[in-house]
Amino acid sequence: MSHNSFGHLFRVTTFGESHGPALGAIVDGCPPKIPLDAKDIQGFLDKRKPGQSRFTTQRREADEVKILSGVFSDGDGRRVTTGTPIALVIENTDQRSKDYGEIADTYRPGHADYVYDAKYGVRDHRGGGRSSARETAARVAAGAVARKVIAGVTIRGALVQVGPHRIDRANFDWAEVERNPLFCPDAHAAELWADYLDGVRKDGSSIGAVIEIVAEGVPVGWGAPVYGKLDADLAAAMMSINAVKGVEIGAGFAAAELTGEDNADEMRAGPNGPKFLSNNAGGVLGGISTGQPVVVRFAVKPTSSILTPRRTIDRFGKETDIVTKGRHDPCVGIRAVPVGEAMMACVLADHFLRHRGQMG
Amino acid sequence: MSHNSFGHLFRVTTFGESHGPALGAIVDGCPPKIPLDAKDIQGFLDKRKPGQSRFTTQRREADEVKILSGVFSDGDGRRVTTGTPIALVIENTDQRSKDYGEIADTYRPGHADYVYDAKYGVRDHRGGGRSSARETAARVAAGAVARKVIAGVTIRGALVQVGPHRIDRANFDWAEVERNPLFCPDAHAAELWADYLDGVRKDGSSIGAVIEIVAEGVPVGWGAPVYGKLDADLAAAMMSINAVKGVEIGAGFAAAELTGEDNADEMRAGPNGPKFLSNNAGGVLGGISTGQPVVVRFAVKPTSSILTPRRTIDRFGKETDIVTKGRHDPCVGIRAVPVGEAMMACVLADHFLRHRGQMG
Amino acid sequence: MSHNSFGHLFRVTTFGESHGPALGAIVDGCPPKIPLDAKDIQGFLDKRKPGQSRFTTQRREADEVKILSGVFSDGDGRRVTTGTPIALVIENTDQRSKDYGEIADTYRPGHADYVYDAKYGVRDHRGGGRSSARETAARVAAGAVARKVIAGVTIRGALVQVGPHRIDRANFDWAEVERNPLFCPDAHAAELWADYLDGVRKDGSSIGAVIEIVAEGVPVGWGAPVYGKLDADLAAAMMSINAVKGVEIGAGFAAAELTGEDNADEMRAGPNGPKFLSNNAGGVLGGISTGQPVVVRFAVKPTSSILTPRRTIDRFGKETDIVTKGRHDPCVGIRAVPVGEAMMACVLADHFLRHRGQMG
Amino acid sequence: MSHNSFGHLFRVTTFGESHGPALGAIVDGCPPKIPLDAKDIQGFLDKRKPGQSRFTTQRREADEVKILSGVFSDGDGRRVTTGTPIALVIENTDQRSKDYGEIADTYRPGHADYVYDAKYGVRDHRGGGRSSARETAARVAAGAVARKVIAGVTIRGALVQVGPHRIDRANFDWAEVERNPLFCPDAHAAELWADYLDGVRKDGSSIGAVIEIVAEGVPVGWGAPVYGKLDADLAAAMMSINAVKGVEIGAGFAAAELTGEDNADEMRAGPNGPKFLSNNAGGVLGGISTGQPVVVRFAVKPTSSILTPRRTIDRFGKETDIVTKGRHDPCVGIRAVPVGEAMMACVLADHFLRHRGQMG
Repeated sequence: MSHNSFGHLFRVTTFGESHGPALGAIVDGCPPKIPLDAKDIQGFLDKRKPGQSRFTTQRREADEVKILSGVFSDGDGRRVTTGTPIALVIENTDQRSKDYGEIADTYRPGHADYVYDAKYGVRDHRGGGRSSARETAARVAAGAVARKVIAGVTIRGALVQVGPHRIDRANFDWAEVERNPLFCPDAHAAELWADYLDGVRKDGSSIGAVIEIVAEGVPVGWGAPVYGKLDADLAAAMMSINAVKGVEIGAGFAAAELTGEDNADEMRAGPNGPKFLSNNAGGVLGGISTGQPVVVRFAVKPTSSILTPRRTIDRFGKETDIVTKGRHDPCVGIRAVPVGEAMMACVLADHFLRHRGQMG
Repeated sequence: MSHNSFGHLFRVTTFGESHGPALGAIVDGCPPKIPLDAKDIQGFLDKRKPGQSRFTTQRREADEVKILSGVFSDGDGRRVTTGTPIALVIENTDQRSKDYGEIADTYRPGHADYVYDAKYGVRDHRGGGRSSARETAARVAAGAVARKVIAGVTIRGALVQVGPHRIDRANFDWAEVERNPLFCPDAHAAELWADYLDGVRKDGSSIGAVIEIVAEGVPVGWGAPVYGKLDADLAAAMMSINAVKGVEIGAGFAAAELTGEDNADEMRAGPNGPKFLSNNAGGVLGGISTGQPVVVRFAVKPTSSILTPRRTIDRFGKETDIVTKGRHDPCVGIRAVPVGEAMMACVLADHFLRHRGQMG
Repeated sequence: MSHNSFGHLFRVTTFGESHGPALGAIVDGCPPKIPLDAKDIQGFLDKRKPGQSRFTTQRREADEVKILSGVFSDGDGRRVTTGTPIALVIENTDQRSKDYGEIADTYRPGHADYVYDAKYGVRDHRGGGRSSARETAARVAAGAVARKVIAGVTIRGALVQVGPHRIDRANFDWAEVERNPLFCPDAHAAELWADYLDGVRKDGSSIGAVIEIVAEGVPVGWGAPVYGKLDADLAAAMMSINAVKGVEIGAGFAAAELTGEDNADEMRAGPNGPKFLSNNAGGVLGGISTGQPVVVRFAVKPTSSILTPRRTIDRFGKETDIVTKGRHDPCVGIRAVPVGEAMMACVLADHFLRHRGQMG
Repeated sequence: MSHNSFGHLFRVTTFGESHGPALGAIVDGCPPKIPLDAKDIQGFLDKRKPGQSRFTTQRREADEVKILSGVFSDGDGRRVTTGTPIALVIENTDQRSKDYGEIADTYRPGHADYVYDAKYGVRDHRGGGRSSARETAARVAAGAVARKVIAGVTIRGALVQVGPHRIDRANFDWAEVERNPLFCPDAHAAELWADYLDGVRKDGSSIGAVIEIVAEGVPVGWGAPVYGKLDADLAAAMMSINAVKGVEIGAGFAAAELTGEDNADEMRAGPNGPKFLSNNAGGVLGGISTGQPVVVRFAVKPTSSILTPRRTIDRFGKETDIVTKGRHDPCVGIRAVPVGEAMMACVLADHFLRHRGQMG
């Protein structure tokens, strides 16, 4: 991952600020002859789109994607990828930049305002500029392309913790994720969380969350030890998402408390290679996929855009207080679900191509 | 991170198998005129070296590093870097490969044996070959060079959890880390853990751990959003270490339970930029260093090399049991401390140079 | 250089097909606070723009560039770079794709039609799609940004040979380059070439050319041996331009005929380091700039779009003849001048940042 | 190409100075299960080895390669690659560094002495240190591995020009290349050149040369437009070889003098895709291989190590004269033949894997 690009063979470069004219992604290295239309991408963007429920920011963006290059008719009336770079552009339409006049000079604690100013000496402060979570729309668009590259892999995400409230694993149901606006796989938890989040929202507060992303259908063998490990790339990909402060694979931090007897996933003979008796590894051993589901979780901090005044300084070094107005998410973790799915898709697509390059 | 290299401007490439003739690292892009002698590196290798205490593997390796290139006399009798690639080689001397005869054909659960075979169709099974933690010696050697590149930064690591036992933060003392063989910063915990680990060792079992690495003296501004984020690179670097299953920055997973009021680090005016009133960010906001200490923790799973028989299959698909003989660490997390420090050093050195490239 | 990107710290990614909705470039890694407006870029695009004289294709394109991201007000009324990715987009307006109906199925000899089809199995045939020289507009746009990064360097290009006709070095005058539509630095040659090219054009033929690009003001020290050499990167950059078949630095191929006595550039003491008595090296020794002008020449083949029928096959393997209609350049080398300048600028900007990264 | 590495999937990193303890290469990303023994590499090193004839330097080096990692028994008694990094090390044995005492302080014109000092402020002056052509032994070793990756491709090189003397194309015979110490494919020219070079040698002078490298058996489709073009990567690879000042593909600079009618390679139907009626393209169109032989030529300047005194300065800025003693090649172009072959092999191996990654 370098600057604003990631991936080696399936390479994604994004651009754009929250309140600039547009943002987008260039997807380079995509295999050719894959059917691809804007509507294939739009569905995923709609999942991430703000303003879908009372639990997300009320900014209204159509998030309509345009494909500027890299697809062409295959002669049978279908648009397909051509192997050349796919440029995806989303125009910004509902910017309301004046909401952000105040933060032109004052640093919001917990935001990137101060560090951008300290590093670059200039920044587009409107809505956080480049550091805005709005950038993740470009990730989701790229992820939609990536999914098509690894068509045999199913990638799903869910919110598994909101603040102190965890799901009950016994209730885990992927179908439920589609039914509630929280991407929660536990119907009972979804209800409780809705109430809890209403409280958070009404208080003008915010809360953190944990997201779980699972990729099923990944064959054994993807990943390039010892630095191009699949889990290392997943860790970077998830950590690069706005507000993420932790990433774990399989048993994750809980593995620290396990003994070798309990942790190692035993194997029995299966019809196609080993049948693992557990998946503490989260589908990755030695940086290489095992054929089991790849399971990643990441923690998202609460947004710092809250109505309670916080102590801060301005860019002249003067002490002041700040209350963030603007429109914000009480729990940014919710919209991080489709973003995490997209990053999983991009990393897997890249590793699929890299594996195929080395191994045939 | 790609294959066996990481870093952009300060780039490290490692090679070598556990039981091959040698392993090593090529450090490319190092600035010139930095005093560098083998002994500068040796001290760090000695910290990681096996056989230092009863809590680590009894394999005996001198881990003596040789510098094959990239240093020269500066005319004043000192050896200094010349800006050309620095080749660091460590010969293997105490291989006892026959200990591993059994695992030539049988996959150890929780190890990379199966996936290497499935991916590559051939592997050096002796001691895990390329997937052995022995590879981390090369990281530590490279890390010693990296520390010299960022001479103003102090990097220290400690074991903060062993199995279910955490340190008491009130007892945290960096000086204590040097005094016990567990790199534990809490003298009281160190004693308890020693007893606990003796039990683990005598049982032929193993246990996981959590390591914390802190870098002090990192100035504000290092890191390249939005994919070359400092924390994203740290996540990849730590996750690439053998047996690591989770990485977190600052408050990490605990941030999921925090409100925006509690999480955001408030700022007051300090003599040199802001004085932060807390460090939940772990020294990184928006992927850029804040000037506060950079705090990373990672979870290490227990090694699967244990004396209790585990169910597995062999490479012919036949079901069998395995007991790993060989010489192993009851808690590989201990020796992961200097490795984590080295990875922190390499990532910071790279970001220092990248920042300097873009910003002057 | 990988796929559709080049550069390490100053990194350019381009996208777009000749007859798609738009093409463009993402410039990543640009230092902040550099004044940048669309008009700074437009001037260079206008030099490359088709339809400027009777010697270039009659396709009419405004080639109007829009900046979608990466610039912001500096507070003093100027637009400046912010250090985030700069997205540059140019819409296609005068496509006349029907001119290309015939080549949907038939491969033009000397063009990339056949290889794109053989590699990808699908291609946007209209105007050559991605392989069209129209892509070079994106390079020129990126090059305009690069020039600002290395403001102390003057980059100029000229046509020094058209078919068998070379300039007279005694007449070389940079000012003359601006005065004739051929970018020819020799006023006398410019007249003769104009007549010669009129003949080529009227015959429906085409002819090759040699372009020389000179960068003055490059300080000693840029370049990263032994694979990131300045001249190696320049060679790749120039060879990547459409229709280029050869690249040379300094004395170039003529150096093969020189003795060591004649070739080596002798040195005398100058006020700021050495004064070289000649520049056979073309400003690069050992892959590192010497402080002398960097001199690169590249040969451009004649376009294969000519009115004389040529033997070829179609995509079904059937033999046929082809006459390329459409609108084309009798000497594509002319418009390659600003493209070569842009590539020189991008490579130098990247090496400037890389040098600064390693050396401070 | 970056610093001391090149290639994306087949990636080569080299290290070492002319008079240090050793030099070598790390080959990363090599596919597994390819038979590889030191003797497979040694044959190519022996071709490049100094002291083979009176036309090359009299330095005596065994250039014996050791493989430190990345190969293992395949169970059937053969050593094969394992997919992990292959470390190749060659010890220096005949350094005679005292020959170079004089150049510790004085810059040899036409060598990299001055620029290394100016850039790095320190350098290993002995034999040119890192900038010595001795580094090319590591390229040749890596190239031997690359050839095995693309086993269906035949790569051969020849000297086609020495000073002003060109071969007669009518006499071109690959078999002849093996029979004379000049790698000359024209038996008659080989004799004349031997006399000519004896004169150059006796005069203590040196002369330039042109080398041609041809790869047969490259299928259509390798190369990644528009910046990862096969010819762009070949240009960089060849230009990165010591003393190279020009690179051309196919007709090369001669294409500048051709009309479109003469240049475009016409096509007829062949049994497997098109049969080209000429190969002015040198096997590459639009950056993608055409299936025809890939033909690259590069010009090597004469070494500046000559017995005639040349004017120069020392590192204190003082004017002086220099006569290079030491042991040198009267025509470094001769030994550049196996080096050019190696670079061709590495670039093709990399593009083969990259193509396979994207296309399957």
